[in-house]
Amino acid sequence: MRITGIKVYILKPQEFSQEATRINLPSALVSISTDEGIEGITMLEEAIYAEELVMKFKAEKGWLRSVENFVPLIGADPFDRERIEKSFWDQYFFQRSASTVLCALDECLWDIFGKALKMPIYKLIGAYREKLPAFASTQSYGDIMDYIRIAENCLEEGFKAIKIHPTRYWKKDIEVCKAVREVVGDEITLMLDPFHAYTREEALRVGREIEELNFYWYEDPIPTTDINGLAALCRALDIPILTGENVHDLYSYAELIQRGAADGLRCVDVNVGGITGMLKVAHLAEIFGMKCELHSWGHPWQQAAHLHVMLSIKNCRFFEMPFPVGIFDQGTKDVIRIDREGYVHAPKKPGLGIDVNWEEVEKKTIKVISWPD
Amino acid sequence: MRITGIKVYILKPQEFSQEATRINLPSALVSISTDEGIEGITMLEEAIYAEELVMKFKAEKGWLRSVENFVPLIGADPFDRERIEKSFWDQYFFQRSASTVLCALDECLWDIFGKALKMPIYKLIGAYREKLPAFASTQSYGDIMDYIRIAENCLEEGFKAIKIHPTRYWKKDIEVCKAVREVVGDEITLMLDPFHAYTREEALRVGREIEELNFYWYEDPIPTTDINGLAALCRALDIPILTGENVHDLYSYAELIQRGAADGLRCVDVNVGGITGMLKVAHLAEIFGMKCELHSWGHPWQQAAHLHVMLSIKNCRFFEMPFPVGIFDQGTKDVIRIDREGYVHAPKKPGLGIDVNWEEVEKKTIKVISWPD
Repeated sequence: MRITGIKVYILKPQEFSQEATRINLPSALVSISTDEGIEGITMLEEAIYAEELVMKFKAEKGWLRSVENFVPLIGADPFDRERIEKSFWDQYFFQRSASTVLCALDECLWDIFGKALKMPIYKLIGAYREKLPAFASTQSYGDIMDYIRIAENCLEEGFKAIKIHPTRYWKKDIEVCKAVREVVGDEITLMLDPFHAYTREEALRVGREIEELNFYWYEDPIPTTDINGLAALCRALDIPILTGENVHDLYSYAELIQRGAADGLRCVDVNVGGITGMLKVAHLAEIFGMKCELHSWGHPWQQAAHLHVMLSIKNCRFFEMPFPVGIFDQGTKDVIRIDREGYVHAPKKPGLGIDVNWEEVEKKTIKVISWPD
Repeated sequence: MRITGIKVYILKPQEFSQEATRINLPSALVSISTDEGIEGITMLEEAIYAEELVMKFKAEKGWLRSVENFVPLIGADPFDRERIEKSFWDQYFFQRSASTVLCALDECLWDIFGKALKMPIYKLIGAYREKLPAFASTQSYGDIMDYIRIAENCLEEGFKAIKIHPTRYWKKDIEVCKAVREVVGDEITLMLDPFHAYTREEALRVGREIEELNFYWYEDPIPTTDINGLAALCRALDIPILTGENVHDLYSYAELIQRGAADGLRCVDVNVGGITGMLKVAHLAEIFGMKCELHSWGHPWQQAAHLHVMLSIKNCRFFEMPFPVGIFDQGTKDVIRIDREGYVHAPKKPGLGIDVNWEEVEKKTIKVISWPD
């Protein structure tokens, strides 16, 4: 099989019926075509990186120059993921966008792989399980009452675990955590993700409080770049500190681990180059005895990409479900939902398992770019 | 597809026409069967671990008890590699043999996977390349003249790189290295692997000498368990210290890296549970900026298992070819050889790509065990 081209559908920004914590820019559906008629498809939340992928496709002659056996990208075997992706990385690693652009490419290649072999991706990686529990991952709100209302909604919908994206004001966040714990009771698993909001001192104080409230993990309390601060928090606190989803490449995990700056890892496809990168980080975490919790907080393609990895590794405890459920859905009817016990199940269709709703995509498309034209 | 059983052919010890550095015990051909008629096959150098795998197959009820969704091994989907193997590991990790027994299971499952999808394994992992250079890996000899003769033979056969397994007497080994460098000239890549032979002090002295002789790597000069000693050698010497193939599980690589006890990793299937484990170690090494050089010094199935991983990663420089070439071949006509430029090429057949020569295997079989009987 050979790659024949790429096509990107840039979509107008989503309109949300409810409050959504999101920088709302155009997203993009990305499709890589082959000479056997199979199309690999994924979606990027930020269209600009999909446009960049097309531009890099145009620079095809240069793309693969650093690999021993030169092949132009158009004409490459889509099964040669490591060859194509290492070539991409060798040439573009210095660009801030590289991991995200690579993610779009990687997920399209995995989708082609699964569709060609008529199997879901997690089965091809080597399945570990068919389902895993989900936590509801809240939006950010300004008011404690919003968190109480949302927590109640989560329980009503069957979630057994909730991750709070808090107000990001540390004193108020402690009150939010206390209020939510009171509402949900002792049996529900709670996590806190202040998304880099605190100083070191604030992070320690909040950490002590949520230890008392029996929270399960404490994610990104301070910036990922503050390795000394993270290492100090890991030493000081009993609650596991999770970090990593805001690094800009695969290789930055080495220092987090070497310096004891994480008790567990977080990982998101767009910051490590897709499914291939997430698997590598999960394997690293496994050898170092750590969890690797994946950031499946996005549209259905992104959720599916993370879900396939979760289903093929042991060291991930939860699927992350954006709440309200379905808030980021677009472009497909193959949406991911929890069952009555709060589990998400393996996609059944080949590849990523997400079929495009072309009628919807055409309505929302504001621009199409492709190579060859 | 479902696993239906296991069959092990225990073979009489190999007879070598030339000197061979090997503890020569019975080896075993291992076959896992499925309800679709596909058989996954590999070979273990030491039959005792294949017998152990059969015994563990018999204990099928217990085997998978630690995984959330219980399945007995007979009846399991062979594509669920991570599920089957994590279940195995959770139950048997405490046994010294676990990684080796798991290796036989893992390679049979990968072979089934490739045969079912009619593709070589490296293409299913995600190919990086179609060939890589090989080094000739010598036997151990007692006399300098033997090393000179062997080095000349290596060059005649087209090798551009040679790894010396020396006498393991440090002063004599320095003379061997000098003599071989003199014979092969400056253009040939040389490595030294004393296989744990030296004290720390001897290792440092030999290291300084082979730096002067422009050797490419220095493998296992002291025991892998001497982490302080290895870290000191890594700091003191410019030549890369490679170690790792003599750990007893995947997880022991964490400490080697954390303590700076290796400049590059070595890895062998039987000590990390097969192809799955080797991939994890290679990914770990990649993130930490290290090479992961694989120990393909064995019979054709073991060579193939390592070759498939080498072809799907970037951070491995060389295939290790036992020298004299073919010395460990048995049980198949699908042997791995170098081309005129000293490269080995990707296997073309599905799975591991090694077909059994049943006529030969039947002649050499001294015992057959299976489950169900």
